[in-house]
Amino acid sequence: MSATVVNNGVNVQALLDAREALKGAPEAAKFTWRASCKWQNGTHSESKVESFFGLGQEQKHKQETSLGADHPEVFASEDRAITPIEYVLVGLASCLTAGVAAVAQNRGIQLRSVESNLEGTMDIRGILGVDSDVRNGYDDIKVTFKIDADASKEAIDALVAQSQKRSAVFDIITNPVNVSVEVAH
Amino acid sequence: MSATVVNNGVNVQALLDAREALKGAPEAAKFTWRASCKWQNGTHSESKVESFFGLGQEQKHKQETSLGADHPEVFASEDRAITPIEYVLVGLASCLTAGVAAVAQNRGIQLRSVESNLEGTMDIRGILGVDSDVRNGYDDIKVTFKIDADASKEAIDALVAQSQKRSAVFDIITNPVNVSVEVAH
Repeated sequence: MSATVVNNGVNVQALLDAREALKGAPEAAKFTWRASCKWQNGTHSESKVESFFGLGQEQKHKQETSLGADHPEVFASEDRAITPIEYVLVGLASCLTAGVAAVAQNRGIQLRSVESNLEGTMDIRGILGVDSDVRNGYDDIKVTFKIDADASKEAIDALVAQSQKRSAVFDIITNPVNVSVEVAH
Repeated sequence: MSATVVNNGVNVQALLDAREALKGAPEAAKFTWRASCKWQNGTHSESKVESFFGLGQEQKHKQETSLGADHPEVFASEDRAITPIEYVLVGLASCLTAGVAAVAQNRGIQLRSVESNLEGTMDIRGILGVDSDVRNGYDDIKVTFKIDADASKEAIDALVAQSQKRSAVFDIITNPVNVSVEVAH
């Protein structure tokens, strides 16, 4: 039996240690994630992400990230960037993918490649106010993974299922989140 | 009375025309938005967004967009990019902001600046599996707008309320969306 070291680049021991540490320190587990957004013109905006709060103190990403969003030309806009709802797909894809890597590491499964395709369907009669029975957002999102790994089909299916079970963005999309929107005067 | 032309850069007439046109052509209103994602290493992935389907045919953004995602150093990761859940905030911010611009244009209100700050709170004991009663995603998101416009406080509040009412991403986050995750073997 060969003693191949599985390395998906995830420090699972640190995560397991964090899990133990947070059992006795629930306050440290409270994170606040932030973004700020500035309207540019038309439907075009620029958002910035840099700081967050967690483990009881202010934290910063290594660098500030700026992200544009706009509507496409078929919505009579300039298409200077991807749409807001495409950002939701990017969040879901990357959350599930990080989860697959972490779970594979924890289960001793070496990954070679993890790819996914996402499709979200939406009836734009909702946002245009044509029919109040049509919702504004996605009516359905389909995620299809293609994974090459040292594992059986069943073990690969189980990786994806466990990632889904622990995914923050999957939870946000499939379950209601309270959102309050205020105007500071 | 001065006849100042309100111009927020949104072609509201085209949107109103589209609304009328789609009343008689519901099939054209069915859009499919897409993203693809490739695992890089650890919790780092790269997603791409380019094509979508709508108005009865394949469509493309002017350019393909690549977006990295990762976990921060406090999660024992490399912080090569922002986190998946921060992408959700960017989607929400940009969706509400585009809506404010469109509604203001429709109501004849000239905007000078629209800024927003978003905070999403999350207890990471959920994703770490410390406590199954703690959800994985945000427990609460707060959006605060600061808007400078030729309008009363009440009219500005009403702009934001209407944007919220028609926002695709606000709907996706506050209401459940069906997500199916499959593995292609």
